[in-house]
Amino acid sequence: MAGTIQFWFEFASTYSYLSAMRIEEAAHRHGVSVQWEPFLLGPIFAAQGWTSSPFNLYAAKGRYMWRDMERLCALRGLPFFRPDPFPQNGLSAARLALVARRAGRIAPFTRAVFSAQFADRENISEPKVLAACWDRAGLPSDMMDQARHEETKAELFAQGERAVHLGLFGAPSFIVQDELFWGDDRLDQAIACAASL
Amino acid sequence: MAGTIQFWFEFASTYSYLSAMRIEEAAHRHGVSVQWEPFLLGPIFAAQGWTSSPFNLYAAKGRYMWRDMERLCALRGLPFFRPDPFPQNGLSAARLALVARRAGRIAPFTRAVFSAQFADRENISEPKVLAACWDRAGLPSDMMDQARHEETKAELFAQGERAVHLGLFGAPSFIVQDELFWGDDRLDQAIACAASL
Repeated sequence: MAGTIQFWFEFASTYSYLSAMRIEEAAHRHGVSVQWEPFLLGPIFAAQGWTSSPFNLYAAKGRYMWRDMERLCALRGLPFFRPDPFPQNGLSAARLALVARRAGRIAPFTRAVFSAQFADRENISEPKVLAACWDRAGLPSDMMDQARHEETKAELFAQGERAVHLGLFGAPSFIVQDELFWGDDRLDQAIACAASL
Repeated sequence: MAGTIQFWFEFASTYSYLSAMRIEEAAHRHGVSVQWEPFLLGPIFAAQGWTSSPFNLYAAKGRYMWRDMERLCALRGLPFFRPDPFPQNGLSAARLALVARRAGRIAPFTRAVFSAQFADRENISEPKVLAACWDRAGLPSDMMDQARHEETKAELFAQGERAVHLGLFGAPSFIVQDELFWGDDRLDQAIACAASL
């Protein structure tokens, strides 16, 4: 019986978009199940002394990332627009994702948010954008309020603590048992690892 | 007619080892020729405010890199030992590589140096280690002295200026016409790009 892959993603992360759009199909093809784990990179970057995305702080690396994303999205037939501002504030989206997870709808909600950001050029910190994603994921509108509950806030904070404990330093990251894989480039290797369990 | 891929590598770079050991076979399979371009990352990192390898400065990223290298080398049947110290000082090796390039032997010399470092646990800043690599690459020993000539020193300095001009921020990097590809993970994409020219 194949295992499970934990998919740690941050809504503002460009390479998390790549993985979010393909992980379920790729994993299920190998009998692997996916556990969606939203978290915030901000506190992890801040602990490293970074005040913004490394793609903003290191200009050459940032220029390269935008071109790399353009090429990869073209190869995969994915739309790609550069978010403005970048990085976007993914706090509300991450809290909503945890609520959607309780309802078993985190995958479609997450894909809707990434598509809003990178395909439709929406700002994912805006309530009306998130409400549209919520709706698109087939979630009942009266559940949205749970994102503001203390319990949900605490759950997202705990995700951040788990991420640090797991040794995460970027997104997307994948955990298969005790193995950490970093980046969309390692998704297939991580799935193969889970499939071999 | 397929094109050329420029292979920019740094001797202290773990992921450059991965590419150095496979680039010629992979490129030639697609009719692509390889231009070997040694350079030093130190000045590029220093310009970003880094006093050492990012794998030393950012502990979680460093821990991950060593495990990632272990897994990748195991998959590829490559030996892998963690160099001590890390990063190694690749200055002499890089100058020698430029001399070896004049003699048309940069590829075997470079592979010999990477193998000495990562397979045989040698310190590649030591003259006797480099002399053995020189010999293994079939180079005449009386040419080694050229590495200390002002012309060679200036040539390596110019490599660094070219690297900055090309927007390089890490190694290995690949240039195909105006396209930059970063990391061993992009080698196949870079070769496909060159093959399509």
